[in-house]
Amino acid sequence: MTSLWRQRPVGIVGLGLIGGSLALDLRQAGARVHAVVHRERTALRAEQRRLADRISLDPAVLQDCGLVILALPLDQLLNPDPRLIRALPADGVVTDVGSVKQPVLRQWSSLPRFVGSHPMAGTARAGVDAGEAGLFRGRPWVATPCRTTDPEALEAVRQMAVQLEARWVCCEAAEHDRAVALVSHLPVLVSAALIATADAGAAAAAEPGLPALARLLASSGFADTTRVGGGNPRLGTLMAQSNREAVLQALGTYQKAISTLQEHVLQENWGLLEETLGRCAELRTDFL
Amino acid sequence: MTSLWRQRPVGIVGLGLIGGSLALDLRQAGARVHAVVHRERTALRAEQRRLADRISLDPAVLQDCGLVILALPLDQLLNPDPRLIRALPADGVVTDVGSVKQPVLRQWSSLPRFVGSHPMAGTARAGVDAGEAGLFRGRPWVATPCRTTDPEALEAVRQMAVQLEARWVCCEAAEHDRAVALVSHLPVLVSAALIATADAGAAAAAEPGLPALARLLASSGFADTTRVGGGNPRLGTLMAQSNREAVLQALGTYQKAISTLQEHVLQENWGLLEETLGRCAELRTDFL
Repeated sequence: MTSLWRQRPVGIVGLGLIGGSLALDLRQAGARVHAVVHRERTALRAEQRRLADRISLDPAVLQDCGLVILALPLDQLLNPDPRLIRALPADGVVTDVGSVKQPVLRQWSSLPRFVGSHPMAGTARAGVDAGEAGLFRGRPWVATPCRTTDPEALEAVRQMAVQLEARWVCCEAAEHDRAVALVSHLPVLVSAALIATADAGAAAAAEPGLPALARLLASSGFADTTRVGGGNPRLGTLMAQSNREAVLQALGTYQKAISTLQEHVLQENWGLLEETLGRCAELRTDFL
Repeated sequence: MTSLWRQRPVGIVGLGLIGGSLALDLRQAGARVHAVVHRERTALRAEQRRLADRISLDPAVLQDCGLVILALPLDQLLNPDPRLIRALPADGVVTDVGSVKQPVLRQWSSLPRFVGSHPMAGTARAGVDAGEAGLFRGRPWVATPCRTTDPEALEAVRQMAVQLEARWVCCEAAEHDRAVALVSHLPVLVSAALIATADAGAAAAAEPGLPALARLLASSGFADTTRVGGGNPRLGTLMAQSNREAVLQALGTYQKAISTLQEHVLQENWGLLEETLGRCAELRTDFL
């Protein structure tokens, strides 16, 4: 890895939150960073922020890179520009940061030194101004090697993740996708449905003042529970689309959980309801 | 109101988060505060914090009060100690801070100068150390007068809320309860069901590593969406119990919202899903 860093530049495709943060950390660690962006305006701003040593709209800037990180939005990652594919260095290690891994592997694993990976870090920000140093510190960086993954390529990505102080985790792509369906994609739908319900439930009420009153009384609990459901609709849709099977399974399990709570309330099983809520409170500490 | 404050003490029953915060603000505003607490230990700690001018385990301390605020947990408010009822000053204004209003009115509205109210303020803290100055500033303080409510008593409570810089809101108890079912009680159940699903969905998977992986990958989105579902199970149960009808109605509407999202994913209606999520994102800004 040291040789990959010192002797050859690291390529980053996309300088949004993840790409920009990677660029800052990698330069800090002594790497030369060559970045590809989509728009002239992004390139100018990235130059101002000194995110990379070379910034270009032309993927040819990647030609000497020993390691290339595809830090693209999921839709672009799954439908890559053919010019980008042609410009990737033939002997370079290539990895990605996509939040769903099976379709990424289907798209990319024919590349000889490709490693699927997903650094689990984020903020509410996006775009060329969002990148920040130290974003990956202490956060899981999940790699999903498959049968054909080159062990040296995997090791190169691991060393980068460790350099950025991320917590390295390896698992199968299917396992990753099922886990993120439960803890990352399902929350978006659960949370969006709550917003829709607060609106529809108030609008359907007999009291004409209810929509305004519900809006007035919504407080920090509502804000927290609906935050991810009020996020980028394109991103939410892409997650559901690219992880459809696991998301549907999670939704099915979720509907059973809601029905169980509903049944306790309907049957006035207050002891059981309190027991269930108590178990949830305990479980939550396991997760966080 | 000025006379109520200057000439006669204000009584507070309970010095938890709400009662303690009220006590601090009211003393700051120049009131003499007489407080009743349940335990000797609480009384000692409240004395140390100088929460009130007089603190007693005996509700007789309320006898001269012109205004008494029942800052009790919902279950104690709905099943009050007969000694407390007997000790309330016959000519005093009495109000409460309960988060569900119809059962409170059923219990208390026979009191001649009772006003149902609900200051919508909270933090994650509870107990005698939780009270803080300025908690009600800018927050809604909902009063739910009914046909028999004494207008002077209502005005006394309004003046107190305004003194604490809360936003005074009047509505019917049924309307209040329906609104909080949607924006406060439903989120608890939605959020708890998500925790239960992350656990059950991972446990049911074929991959033995999934429960550990899901726990490892749960991040800030999961943390926010599950915060209220991981709260006090007794409080969540009391809310559902005392607001059962509105909570059941909200759950019914919620299940339809989840089914709509599920249907979009099942039918691969990605345009409709994105449209729905976009509408939720817009709606959320209305609420917050």
